[in-house]
Amino acid sequence: MASDQTQAASLFEPFFYPARPDGWRFRAYRILFHHESRGERWFDVGLIIAIMISVLIAILDSVPLWHSRHHAAFNALEWGFTLLFSVEFGARLLAVRRPWRYARSFFGIVDFLSIVPTYLALFVVGAHYLSVLRVLRVLRIFRVLQMVRYQSEATMLISALQRSRRKILLFVSVVVTLATCFGALMYLVEGPENGFTSIPHSIYWAIVTMATVGFGDITPHTALGQFITTLIIIIGYGIIAVPTGIYAAELAQAPAPTTAAEKTSPCPCSRCGEPKHTEQARYCHRCGERMDATGAN
Amino acid sequence: MASDQTQAASLFEPFFYPARPDGWRFRAYRILFHHESRGERWFDVGLIIAIMISVLIAILDSVPLWHSRHHAAFNALEWGFTLLFSVEFGARLLAVRRPWRYARSFFGIVDFLSIVPTYLALFVVGAHYLSVLRVLRVLRIFRVLQMVRYQSEATMLISALQRSRRKILLFVSVVVTLATCFGALMYLVEGPENGFTSIPHSIYWAIVTMATVGFGDITPHTALGQFITTLIIIIGYGIIAVPTGIYAAELAQAPAPTTAAEKTSPCPCSRCGEPKHTEQARYCHRCGERMDATGAN
Amino acid sequence: MASDQTQAASLFEPFFYPARPDGWRFRAYRILFHHESRGERWFDVGLIIAIMISVLIAILDSVPLWHSRHHAAFNALEWGFTLLFSVEFGARLLAVRRPWRYARSFFGIVDFLSIVPTYLALFVVGAHYLSVLRVLRVLRIFRVLQMVRYQSEATMLISALQRSRRKILLFVSVVVTLATCFGALMYLVEGPENGFTSIPHSIYWAIVTMATVGFGDITPHTALGQFITTLIIIIGYGIIAVPTGIYAAELAQAPAPTTAAEKTSPCPCSRCGEPKHTEQARYCHRCGERMDATGAN
Amino acid sequence: MASDQTQAASLFEPFFYPARPDGWRFRAYRILFHHESRGERWFDVGLIIAIMISVLIAILDSVPLWHSRHHAAFNALEWGFTLLFSVEFGARLLAVRRPWRYARSFFGIVDFLSIVPTYLALFVVGAHYLSVLRVLRVLRIFRVLQMVRYQSEATMLISALQRSRRKILLFVSVVVTLATCFGALMYLVEGPENGFTSIPHSIYWAIVTMATVGFGDITPHTALGQFITTLIIIIGYGIIAVPTGIYAAELAQAPAPTTAAEKTSPCPCSRCGEPKHTEQARYCHRCGERMDATGAN
Repeated sequence: MASDQTQAASLFEPFFYPARPDGWRFRAYRILFHHESRGERWFDVGLIIAIMISVLIAILDSVPLWHSRHHAAFNALEWGFTLLFSVEFGARLLAVRRPWRYARSFFGIVDFLSIVPTYLALFVVGAHYLSVLRVLRVLRIFRVLQMVRYQSEATMLISALQRSRRKILLFVSVVVTLATCFGALMYLVEGPENGFTSIPHSIYWAIVTMATVGFGDITPHTALGQFITTLIIIIGYGIIAVPTGIYAAELAQAPAPTTAAEKTSPCPCSRCGEPKHTEQARYCHRCGERMDATGAN
Repeated sequence: MASDQTQAASLFEPFFYPARPDGWRFRAYRILFHHESRGERWFDVGLIIAIMISVLIAILDSVPLWHSRHHAAFNALEWGFTLLFSVEFGARLLAVRRPWRYARSFFGIVDFLSIVPTYLALFVVGAHYLSVLRVLRVLRIFRVLQMVRYQSEATMLISALQRSRRKILLFVSVVVTLATCFGALMYLVEGPENGFTSIPHSIYWAIVTMATVGFGDITPHTALGQFITTLIIIIGYGIIAVPTGIYAAELAQAPAPTTAAEKTSPCPCSRCGEPKHTEQARYCHRCGERMDATGAN
Repeated sequence: MASDQTQAASLFEPFFYPARPDGWRFRAYRILFHHESRGERWFDVGLIIAIMISVLIAILDSVPLWHSRHHAAFNALEWGFTLLFSVEFGARLLAVRRPWRYARSFFGIVDFLSIVPTYLALFVVGAHYLSVLRVLRVLRIFRVLQMVRYQSEATMLISALQRSRRKILLFVSVVVTLATCFGALMYLVEGPENGFTSIPHSIYWAIVTMATVGFGDITPHTALGQFITTLIIIIGYGIIAVPTGIYAAELAQAPAPTTAAEKTSPCPCSRCGEPKHTEQARYCHRCGERMDATGAN
Repeated sequence: MASDQTQAASLFEPFFYPARPDGWRFRAYRILFHHESRGERWFDVGLIIAIMISVLIAILDSVPLWHSRHHAAFNALEWGFTLLFSVEFGARLLAVRRPWRYARSFFGIVDFLSIVPTYLALFVVGAHYLSVLRVLRVLRIFRVLQMVRYQSEATMLISALQRSRRKILLFVSVVVTLATCFGALMYLVEGPENGFTSIPHSIYWAIVTMATVGFGDITPHTALGQFITTLIIIIGYGIIAVPTGIYAAELAQAPAPTTAAEKTSPCPCSRCGEPKHTEQARYCHRCGERMDATGAN
């Protein structure tokens, strides 16, 4: 369990820290990567609002009516946000000890991808595709998960997902295999004249049907096809219970959220600011700094 | 758990009581807000039937055929119910100690909104919109939850929902974020010529697809789009288990319904009528009245 | 738990027994209502096959092509099965002690309804509707649940459903109330020109959407309508977990199937044939007959 | 539990072994049927890739555009894979002690069916149907379940499915019965003029609706039909929880995966290579070979 939590946490917690726990780089690091003090939280809230607005602009800019009317304003705002995020990205690179390692991390790539399309649009003509990339900025909001209030819930959910990973993967591969067989069967029974134009198309239909989505763009027309469809649906209905059962059983077996551990954590490390330590910790488990038993930061 | 129950209960139990536990105001208060004695229950049943019929009239009045044939009768009945509910609302305001606080509570607003459209229709021409507001009267039926038979079940369900609130909120925000990314991707792949006219429209499609609703008003037409749709469906299929697992685990951890506590509750308070007290209670936890150990009401 | 099981069992087990535990009426009673011995089971299997075939004929007779080709054969077979079921119904009435009470029971009514349409078709012209009634014969198959192999599973499932009855009823009423409010809202937003022709029609759409069926016969066309639809779907997605959670928690709390009790049950009663008794039973709990400790039937 | 696991395992583990634990037949047997050593695993991975590619070719060959362009290449590759799988099938038959028993086992039949269509296509003209059979090769991938990493998960899932088999069968038969009754009712109410052309067609619609697939190819048009549809959906919504609850409760009651047993298993049998033995085992439980306590293989 402990290793699971660490694994889950490492996805969201930056494993970078500045060389010296003082100076403006340390203050920038705390503001950019930590979420404990009042100022750090205000920065988070402001960043989330900026991301939300810039994503909203990218989304609305794709609506033809809004594009023709407000494109100039959207473009100006877009440049404003891009410059803002560029400054933020630069500050993050400066604040961490290993900038290159940060740039290759998940959030480093997302940060980079969220500013690059606007600059590229200067050189590339008809960068229709680039504007869609801007929507990916929405992934940056997951930094919010690091905010303390939701962290234990997120850790618990992700940890349960990780533990049931193999079972759900197994289940999904069974579903895909069944969909492949049923798709080929329906292609045989219904044929191209009833919309089942090829086996890949029929597999697409089988997955849409088994997952109970049921668009209705392709439907069986022959009596035999409808009978097989009924069978597929009943089988899908019978096995849709499986992932839910897996996950419910996994969550029910999960230990209670580690409120006890959180309460016993003493003051954060004076060097890297890592806030979570066990009560007995005498050295920071992240940077190895000697920890002060008096609690003075 | 105890605080959860109190929190959940306060949504449904009026926290108002009359100044003096005697006189007609107290009797009106007991009839309007309590659900224990025979007379109080008959009033509840009558009120529910009146609400049901008035909502049914508002619904049927929107059907063109019924509107043209029976509008006069519907109008007369509507006025009858509005006057009835107005009297009831007035009585509620008179019976409680703090009328203004009641008027601003959830049920106070619902009560007000359920009578105001009919009066407004006298002054506003073409009050098409107002008649729809009448349907909101259906929310008043939730007072029925206060009826003793269903209260412990409702409390248990709401309490489990409240405890899993953060996890489900987290989950919903992950789903919305995924739908945003997949919507932008499908807008890129399929484009306006296949029905994906804008990113908001594509996000709407992605949510309809991930939640397995699948209207079929927009469907992928290209092979790549159908492949991505298959991926979206499989991901949606794999994570639809999450909220169910959360809730099932939460309910399974819930303590048994508090039948013991209910059984040990002595007679109701002689002042405000609050029926639920612990066995040791010597003062009413609601109004502070000294409680009579002999049980004489 | 014990009372739940009894309650559940009484739905499926006939509570009728013949006056004297000998003679042809007792043998007929055992064959018609019991499922333990070899002969009794063969009768069950034969009856199920006859019901299946007669229902299949009623279903196929509704297909225009089959009706025009094979109507004469279908009619002859139908009369054969009707006479067979009539004889069986008469035998059941003769075999039980209180025929009138049996005739008013659930299976008594189903038995009666499954033979009456064919006779009525002699007198009523154009009895299109009557032939559909024949399909209800399929309900008679639930007698199969009495067959010992599935009884404990059925009892367990029904018992858990009965215990979670109130919670699921509460949940369904919340869903219907939400659908009413959302239906009225969508009627206001989309209006008759987009297919939302009346509030009842919109409520139908809202339930189809919230339950993730999504026919697609009515879909939102305005941007605001699509936004509200997204909200409705997310709310529906968030609360679809509730009944599953309720039921899973209820089943998990269920005691293990009563294999122990079944194993300890001594031989069936020599008078009424009731097979389930506790080990200490000295008198049949159903008919009060003195039970033979030697186990001779 | 133990017998369940054995039963589940026997589906995936070949119960065949060569006569003598030496020579080339034993080495072939180990490579073809075991998954422990490095070489055995590389063979598995290679086989899976070959199966994947050949299935992909069969699928793509059904797309008209790809068929007309690349049919010659597809045909050549198909013959290559068929010869490869033929050699593999022959080696499997040679390696096991009872070839005929293997040929009649599940994977034996799948192996045979995956090579026979290509040969048959030489003699049969227009073997459109045969090419679809090739897609069934995908079932061979389930051999991957034997790979050690996923075996305990697969065993656990299958064992829980087997234990909840009867309950889910009961549930499915209830759903089918309800769908039959509701289908007949809707055929009566809506009639052929609204798309409900026959009772089988209506039953197909009822199952599509109750399972929340909702294609939308048939939809109710009358007000009464829409009201009944709403009822059907609510009933379906209320009972969709049942299989999930069954499975979740079953999985939650499952013992923890047998990691302890796996850890205590000593070295594999020197004769048949069976890797799983209890610590006390002195003789191979599969082939009866005396086991070497020194662990030398």
